[in-house]
Amino acid sequence: MSDLASTTAPAASLDELEQAHADLVAAGLDLDLTRGKPGADQLDLSTDLDGIIGDDWMLDGVDTRNYGSLDGLPSIKAIGGRLLGMPATNVLAGGNSSLELMGRYLVHAHVFGVGGPDTAWNRGQPKMLCPVPGYDRHFSLTEHLGIEMVPVELTEDGPDMDRVEELVGNDHDVVGMWCVPKYANPTGITYATEVVRRLARLGQVASDHFRIMWDNAYAVHDLTDQPDYLESIFTEAEVNGTQDSVVQFASTSKITLAGSGVAFLGTSLGNLAAFRDHLQYFTIGPDKVNHLRHVRKLGGSRAIGDHMAAQAELIRPKFAIVQEVLADGLGDDGRHGHWSTPSGGYFVSFWSRPGLAGEIVDLAARAGVKLTPAGAAFPYGDDPDDSHIRLAPTYPAQDDVRRAMEVFVTCVKLATARADTTS
Amino acid sequence: MSDLASTTAPAASLDELEQAHADLVAAGLDLDLTRGKPGADQLDLSTDLDGIIGDDWMLDGVDTRNYGSLDGLPSIKAIGGRLLGMPATNVLAGGNSSLELMGRYLVHAHVFGVGGPDTAWNRGQPKMLCPVPGYDRHFSLTEHLGIEMVPVELTEDGPDMDRVEELVGNDHDVVGMWCVPKYANPTGITYATEVVRRLARLGQVASDHFRIMWDNAYAVHDLTDQPDYLESIFTEAEVNGTQDSVVQFASTSKITLAGSGVAFLGTSLGNLAAFRDHLQYFTIGPDKVNHLRHVRKLGGSRAIGDHMAAQAELIRPKFAIVQEVLADGLGDDGRHGHWSTPSGGYFVSFWSRPGLAGEIVDLAARAGVKLTPAGAAFPYGDDPDDSHIRLAPTYPAQDDVRRAMEVFVTCVKLATARADTTS
Repeated sequence: MSDLASTTAPAASLDELEQAHADLVAAGLDLDLTRGKPGADQLDLSTDLDGIIGDDWMLDGVDTRNYGSLDGLPSIKAIGGRLLGMPATNVLAGGNSSLELMGRYLVHAHVFGVGGPDTAWNRGQPKMLCPVPGYDRHFSLTEHLGIEMVPVELTEDGPDMDRVEELVGNDHDVVGMWCVPKYANPTGITYATEVVRRLARLGQVASDHFRIMWDNAYAVHDLTDQPDYLESIFTEAEVNGTQDSVVQFASTSKITLAGSGVAFLGTSLGNLAAFRDHLQYFTIGPDKVNHLRHVRKLGGSRAIGDHMAAQAELIRPKFAIVQEVLADGLGDDGRHGHWSTPSGGYFVSFWSRPGLAGEIVDLAARAGVKLTPAGAAFPYGDDPDDSHIRLAPTYPAQDDVRRAMEVFVTCVKLATARADTTS
Repeated sequence: MSDLASTTAPAASLDELEQAHADLVAAGLDLDLTRGKPGADQLDLSTDLDGIIGDDWMLDGVDTRNYGSLDGLPSIKAIGGRLLGMPATNVLAGGNSSLELMGRYLVHAHVFGVGGPDTAWNRGQPKMLCPVPGYDRHFSLTEHLGIEMVPVELTEDGPDMDRVEELVGNDHDVVGMWCVPKYANPTGITYATEVVRRLARLGQVASDHFRIMWDNAYAVHDLTDQPDYLESIFTEAEVNGTQDSVVQFASTSKITLAGSGVAFLGTSLGNLAAFRDHLQYFTIGPDKVNHLRHVRKLGGSRAIGDHMAAQAELIRPKFAIVQEVLADGLGDDGRHGHWSTPSGGYFVSFWSRPGLAGEIVDLAARAGVKLTPAGAAFPYGDDPDDSHIRLAPTYPAQDDVRRAMEVFVTCVKLATARADTTS
């Protein structure tokens, strides 16, 4: 452990902590734990995508170089189906961004209507349920569309289902719900099977055009050899006849290349046909050449598993450093807060003592460590407890993760000590 | 010339033409002149895009493999700027589809408002001017958005500007206008300099949020060594202080790979900032890896020109066959209609005697030759003269273009002879 960390030992006084922080500010660090970006070493695992095509540009009998195939060809849909746990025929393969597909689906539902103009959400006063803490880009997109966001607590097992069922069943202005069901951004929890089953039954009591936006971004992003298990919501929805109420999303952005992957949408055949009817006005088809590259790389039965195991080797030490520095610096008595210990995904959540998150993020920024703004994981940026901070350790090198976390610990202890002094 | 063509000599009787058509139906051809798709030989010119990256994935100092760069990096913007005739800083580089960028811009303007919600076109009863004949996908997109389309005649020099100026100046519900200014889809004409200048001045009399959608899809798609000249509308707009009234689009879909190119949007810096503000909710960034590939291939000062000259070598004979079969089969007396002789682009327009286009397309379909539906080049599919037919000769092989055109000539003559008989 470095000198900086040793100055943040639990017994340090307020004065010592203020001095430690001042030293860090003077040191002029420039570290960044804000975004869930893969590290360069992870991306190196996929540079064989360039040159993977060779002389054969055909996929499923189609010349990938030309126009067409609005929802992608069968072989790339099959990869999406494996990520989403559903048949390939229910899947659309798109461009490089699942966020773009989510936004497009929401515009389809909100502005145009999944069943025609009379069913457009914007005819009423639509609301979406937002488990919190959650993914900031889901929330900013929803706000941009003018859809009201209703926070719901995210527990260790998933969203508070008693509350969700009450809201969805009693208020048909609730037209949708965001879910990141596995290794959730940002807490890292995975929805329990009973939660998935209850979510799959919501379609029985919800508004006709209610949609669960099921963003399974971390479906295969295990960090341990005992990965979390996620029940297939598609199978559960089929059992309950509620297939139309679930729209799933995934991408290879955090499997192959972050900016150059393939995004997928999977849903009922009826929903898919309606979405295609909308999409056809906006594009002739996706980049099938990039689809071909991904089929070549990920199409084998063990390819995704082997590839993600190699990724985990690179990410796991960084998550271990986060846990180590937090435990060493803050102890386990909860006095300085608590944090998640995810088995996969890209994030660790930290909860400070209430009222201190904004101050901690500000202290860290002044000490040269960028963190996601406090409150970002909540609709309208409003964390009512001012407690949650998202940590994203994948992008920096291991040494930088350690230094950034040591700074973070110092800032947490300083903010806590200040609060102790004034209270 | 083949046997089929010889049976369609100008002097053939109605009975002979009916028999010739029946023979074609029996022959069971399967030919397609519907879409402006590049031929496989054109695509072969760009297969070096796979493997072009090698070991260096950086572009302008940025790792193209990771997230980010919402509107693309400077080097790819520069290529867009060359296609659009404007500075790179005014350009956004996007995904694989300029139609997608157009649709996104229209959703931005129509639903969200280029200057905030109060400026959204859908607050009123918006109309767009549509030079006809025009591009069917522009019109279907506009109709899908619920924007009324007002047809304006496209002359040999561009849109009928007297009519355009009257409509734009007197009716502020006219919020936009479609233009394909060079080698226009489908007639192949290029807007005269005076027309470009008058279009650039529309912003002085138009509604504040009026936008010309300038789809310069064929900017570098010359077929002869005396290419048409298109004045830069950006420069003209700058002179008149109307930069906000023009949004330009282009792509490399018909330069490199049709399904895997790079699309561009170019406009005033103010418009670009507003569009970025909208776009940021829907995507983290475009496929920068594909941008890098295109910078490597097209970045040299002569690269685009040399590449398009090679394309022209492949396309020119097909356009020559169209002209030859039409002239040989129909003569030049206008009795069977007339057609365009473009110097570039992807299409030839044919105008039958009024009232016959639908019948000719139907006759051709029964004889195994698919043509774009009659009326497709008009808003709501309504060609008031039932006269225009779009011919797209790039995709089939030369022999197939000839056979398809011979069938077409037979169908034109048969429909004309039938009309002569009943009149």
